[in-house]
Amino acid sequence: MTAVAAATMHALVYRAGGRVVEERPKPQIQKPSDAIVKIVLTTICGTDLHILKGDLPSAQPGRILGHEGVGVIDEVGPGVHAFKRGDRVIVSCVTSCGACEYCRRLMFSHCANGGWILGNAIDGTQAEYVRIPYADTSLYPILAGEDEEPLVMCSDILPTGFECGVLNGQVAPGGTVAIVGSGPIGLAALLTAQFYAPAEIIMIDLDDKRLAVATSFGATRVVNSGTGDAADAVMKLTGGRGVDTAIEAVGIPATFELCERIVASGGRIANIGVHGKPVTLHLERLWDRNMTITTRLVDTVTLPMLLRTVRSHKIDPTRLITHHFAFAEIGAAYDAFADAAATGALKVIIAT
Amino acid sequence: MTAVAAATMHALVYRAGGRVVEERPKPQIQKPSDAIVKIVLTTICGTDLHILKGDLPSAQPGRILGHEGVGVIDEVGPGVHAFKRGDRVIVSCVTSCGACEYCRRLMFSHCANGGWILGNAIDGTQAEYVRIPYADTSLYPILAGEDEEPLVMCSDILPTGFECGVLNGQVAPGGTVAIVGSGPIGLAALLTAQFYAPAEIIMIDLDDKRLAVATSFGATRVVNSGTGDAADAVMKLTGGRGVDTAIEAVGIPATFELCERIVASGGRIANIGVHGKPVTLHLERLWDRNMTITTRLVDTVTLPMLLRTVRSHKIDPTRLITHHFAFAEIGAAYDAFADAAATGALKVIIAT
Amino acid sequence: MTAVAAATMHALVYRAGGRVVEERPKPQIQKPSDAIVKIVLTTICGTDLHILKGDLPSAQPGRILGHEGVGVIDEVGPGVHAFKRGDRVIVSCVTSCGACEYCRRLMFSHCANGGWILGNAIDGTQAEYVRIPYADTSLYPILAGEDEEPLVMCSDILPTGFECGVLNGQVAPGGTVAIVGSGPIGLAALLTAQFYAPAEIIMIDLDDKRLAVATSFGATRVVNSGTGDAADAVMKLTGGRGVDTAIEAVGIPATFELCERIVASGGRIANIGVHGKPVTLHLERLWDRNMTITTRLVDTVTLPMLLRTVRSHKIDPTRLITHHFAFAEIGAAYDAFADAAATGALKVIIAT
Amino acid sequence: MTAVAAATMHALVYRAGGRVVEERPKPQIQKPSDAIVKIVLTTICGTDLHILKGDLPSAQPGRILGHEGVGVIDEVGPGVHAFKRGDRVIVSCVTSCGACEYCRRLMFSHCANGGWILGNAIDGTQAEYVRIPYADTSLYPILAGEDEEPLVMCSDILPTGFECGVLNGQVAPGGTVAIVGSGPIGLAALLTAQFYAPAEIIMIDLDDKRLAVATSFGATRVVNSGTGDAADAVMKLTGGRGVDTAIEAVGIPATFELCERIVASGGRIANIGVHGKPVTLHLERLWDRNMTITTRLVDTVTLPMLLRTVRSHKIDPTRLITHHFAFAEIGAAYDAFADAAATGALKVIIAT
Repeated sequence: MTAVAAATMHALVYRAGGRVVEERPKPQIQKPSDAIVKIVLTTICGTDLHILKGDLPSAQPGRILGHEGVGVIDEVGPGVHAFKRGDRVIVSCVTSCGACEYCRRLMFSHCANGGWILGNAIDGTQAEYVRIPYADTSLYPILAGEDEEPLVMCSDILPTGFECGVLNGQVAPGGTVAIVGSGPIGLAALLTAQFYAPAEIIMIDLDDKRLAVATSFGATRVVNSGTGDAADAVMKLTGGRGVDTAIEAVGIPATFELCERIVASGGRIANIGVHGKPVTLHLERLWDRNMTITTRLVDTVTLPMLLRTVRSHKIDPTRLITHHFAFAEIGAAYDAFADAAATGALKVIIAT
Repeated sequence: MTAVAAATMHALVYRAGGRVVEERPKPQIQKPSDAIVKIVLTTICGTDLHILKGDLPSAQPGRILGHEGVGVIDEVGPGVHAFKRGDRVIVSCVTSCGACEYCRRLMFSHCANGGWILGNAIDGTQAEYVRIPYADTSLYPILAGEDEEPLVMCSDILPTGFECGVLNGQVAPGGTVAIVGSGPIGLAALLTAQFYAPAEIIMIDLDDKRLAVATSFGATRVVNSGTGDAADAVMKLTGGRGVDTAIEAVGIPATFELCERIVASGGRIANIGVHGKPVTLHLERLWDRNMTITTRLVDTVTLPMLLRTVRSHKIDPTRLITHHFAFAEIGAAYDAFADAAATGALKVIIAT
Repeated sequence: MTAVAAATMHALVYRAGGRVVEERPKPQIQKPSDAIVKIVLTTICGTDLHILKGDLPSAQPGRILGHEGVGVIDEVGPGVHAFKRGDRVIVSCVTSCGACEYCRRLMFSHCANGGWILGNAIDGTQAEYVRIPYADTSLYPILAGEDEEPLVMCSDILPTGFECGVLNGQVAPGGTVAIVGSGPIGLAALLTAQFYAPAEIIMIDLDDKRLAVATSFGATRVVNSGTGDAADAVMKLTGGRGVDTAIEAVGIPATFELCERIVASGGRIANIGVHGKPVTLHLERLWDRNMTITTRLVDTVTLPMLLRTVRSHKIDPTRLITHHFAFAEIGAAYDAFADAAATGALKVIIAT
Repeated sequence: MTAVAAATMHALVYRAGGRVVEERPKPQIQKPSDAIVKIVLTTICGTDLHILKGDLPSAQPGRILGHEGVGVIDEVGPGVHAFKRGDRVIVSCVTSCGACEYCRRLMFSHCANGGWILGNAIDGTQAEYVRIPYADTSLYPILAGEDEEPLVMCSDILPTGFECGVLNGQVAPGGTVAIVGSGPIGLAALLTAQFYAPAEIIMIDLDDKRLAVATSFGATRVVNSGTGDAADAVMKLTGGRGVDTAIEAVGIPATFELCERIVASGGRIANIGVHGKPVTLHLERLWDRNMTITTRLVDTVTLPMLLRTVRSHKIDPTRLITHHFAFAEIGAAYDAFADAAATGALKVIIAT
């Protein structure tokens, strides 16, 4: 019957054997601060692939994946004051209660009641509807008539590249930057690094096609780390000085240790990569180099700032979008995204 | 003859077999920016012991040791404008030309023409006279009638604890700090950390006597790392949260890795220790912890600020001074300093 | 009848003719994010006196005054998640929704839905009960068994002195500070300035008794501006250099312009005073002085930090408390506070 | 005789009746840290016009004007180590000894032995030769074969717009900026503000031609303050919010007070203008607005950073150059520069 049909939805679910599109109950308001958002556009993140491989214990089989997207408010709990049914919103990948010690310090990623839980510890956005806890502080309003595809990039990838890479790396006018890894997240760092007019942005990757994309996105130099010693190449490009900012956007020991070799005295290594293993930190060489290493899970605290740069056309995040799919094709979307080497996929848009 | 006698001096020299007091030619002005300083008080640093063990290739046998001290200007080159014969001065352990790219960024430690060279790449202050290159920017004036013993502590140890530990560690009112290593440098960090009114300063060491000193210097908690798991103890003391600032003041993998275990999300590890080996950085656990690691060779850029705190009695650096010797007894001074476990030596004053 | 009696309370109300204690209906939850707090301790602020004189159009007759205090949660709306009935709390003088653009920048004072509204645009804390909007983000938890008098000072006066004066004034180790006005707010700045170990804190006032209090609170120098030119005196005390930080804690043109005369090149004027008139800014003399002027309505963003300093005994805010009254004596409390010159009142505690 | 002829030069001299080209003795090394620079290119600054009107008591008749330029080292004193005869250099408008308290804080403008003295307290660069005190820290090297016209803009105008306007105004990605005054200095602020990708830069001036230049330089909006209330216009353009950064680039009370009216809560007024009169600061309206006002004489501390942006083509400072003259035509250069309304002159290049 209609009433019953309305109470279910389609969703991309992580199952022991892989991913499955299932019919699931439409989410309900559980707490007064919740909102239910009808998803309009969503996308896939590299961490979704990690979950499917079983790499993240916090995400268990049965979970609806996805932590990015834009949508329309379907219903709000009685405690929600900033949004009402019908409002169009951007979903932050990070849920923030606004009240805990970490939220009061703007470290939303470590919110005592939230953090990155969407599509991880609770059901996510790769579905027709999603429940958003602490909606007032976890959603951001869309303006009337606004083009929404670029806004999907504000859920996670742009703030991740910007906060973890560019801000932590203190990219500055006239500075030199190296970005290790020319995948979607490295390219997001490349785009947002240009807010600060660095003199050089050297992109490092194993794939010439990705490096060609990086050049078209504004990299001033590219280094293929498969065809020689990348550290030597960077030192040569910088006159033996090294780079002011090295952004790690891969997540393996080799790429982090490459950053250690190319950072100049007084420089920064800004880690974005999700690491599964320890790395060797060469303090015997770096202890007197006045350098800084940072790690960070994105806080999306710059989301309002990034929205202003998108709205004023200082950045075009749609350059990260290579493919479009309907929600019914989400399996194909995953295939394209997972096989990026062949498909050239960066970010894919899935319209529900 | 008198003229010849006047042209020699006594100096503590690093020789292959160890240290020797030798008669050496009094240093001469070599460049217009040089000054010759007659040393009044000097001291010994842990790095002097490293040099004697042959750990620093930059310091070769034949070198006069020492990079700390106060003295009187004996002669200035024609390019020196800020000092004249008879002026009493503090010697910075770091020589700074004032003009190179790094000096113009206040990173004097990496001065293209200086840095830490005294008692290392050039002859140092454990002598009756020392040549100071770039005197205008490497010496600091002493006020008339001022007590000079506390000022010896401003050559290196106070700025090292303050810049590498406290400033890089962003110690702040109400914050929690752990300092790993209660030797002279850890205690200098302890003293200067109190400029910022942290709520807790936890001192960690293997030696209860040193921990007792730390308590008398203002540590709010002490942990003996030899009698249990120090990380567990710190986590317990901080309610499971960890510390906002972990200061590494030893320089071995175990102590650095202890800092990794006790730093809170959003916290800082500020390395002061001189490391001879790589450490393991557990990025598989820290990549999403929004933490910062810094390394630094002291710049002595805060030397004027520290002088103001000493002169206004906000800090009493003479608490670091445990022993006094005449220059003729410098061998005994080295013995006392090297056997700190038995003698309780922190810093020793040697009067020439 | 009991039920009816329970629904009213006593409150200090601003009326055209002055202040009156009235029986008023106990406040009710109006929005899901509200809490009702039973006040335990409250106090009086200088702005309460301004309201009684009719100086603040935002506060109209009929308003229950008061924006400071500690209490016990009596009732929470369904949207409140961080507190429950029976929790003991500190009331921030600034109401913060946590979700608006300004709250997300930690500028709670300019919250689009709050800011300083308590005892101003809505009824306040000088009553048996108060309604607190956005309770999750406008109240702070008290620990079990904690002494609550010092916490009352965290509602407004300590963060005001600290944020508007000390932080904006960038007080730093070894620096020189002048505070113009030795009333409660100037003294709060004096207490919190000492978190940063400045070399000198010069207190300026017309009243020798207040200056004597300042000396007992840690001022290193005092200047009575009634007995000569205060600017001349400060320049003399600073060797003609002026102060690094001048904190204005009065709110009239003469005191602000005094700050302009005593600030050193490169220094800061941090305004705390509530001004009713424009001042003359001598840009013809200051345009090339590399100085900074700041204004600020307190955000109470440092309230958690200040609590940690209070709890670790880095500061004793009870030094600001000179008088104690029962709520029934609130008229006498106002009299004592308003006639501070005679009574020596700084902050008064009113127990309900 | 040849020897005598070689010892004189032509120079633009400020005389009671105005400016005169005179034959003057070629400058000599006076102190070991001096260099004599043969000027290749120089330019005229608005302050030169002020001196000619007698507005600056520090500059007395007989003074050779000019504080900008590039040239070739002709001779160095024995204390100069960073440069030698034949080196091509940029002259900073600010002379910095490198050793005084202010230089050690990077506040070169307030150097105890220098500051802005060229063409002011000592003879300047509008001559065939100029003596540069403290050459090591007051000159910057030019690379081999480099185009030197853009570098002349690095002597003063670019760092002034950048340091006093853009950095002090904390221009940031997505922010809104208003620049009051579309003359050369306002346009330098406009060019350098774009390093930080602000969403909007609103240029305000009385002259539509200058506003057209501003638009071509990247202003997103222009407001002619002669055709209506400029504050109303800016508030309308910003949805009633005001601007995050208001840069004052004129130097009169009306323009500063315009900045007071348009700055948003939490915003900054960055003064660049040289003021001859006090202004009215409306603290009765601004005391609770959490805003910041800065003043600054340029330090040229960012000159190396700006050089990197010029060399990497992140900025094209030749856009500021409208006219070219030989040194023999320096009178005509002054005429063109002084009558900018008619000639459209921004910066003029004078080749010696």
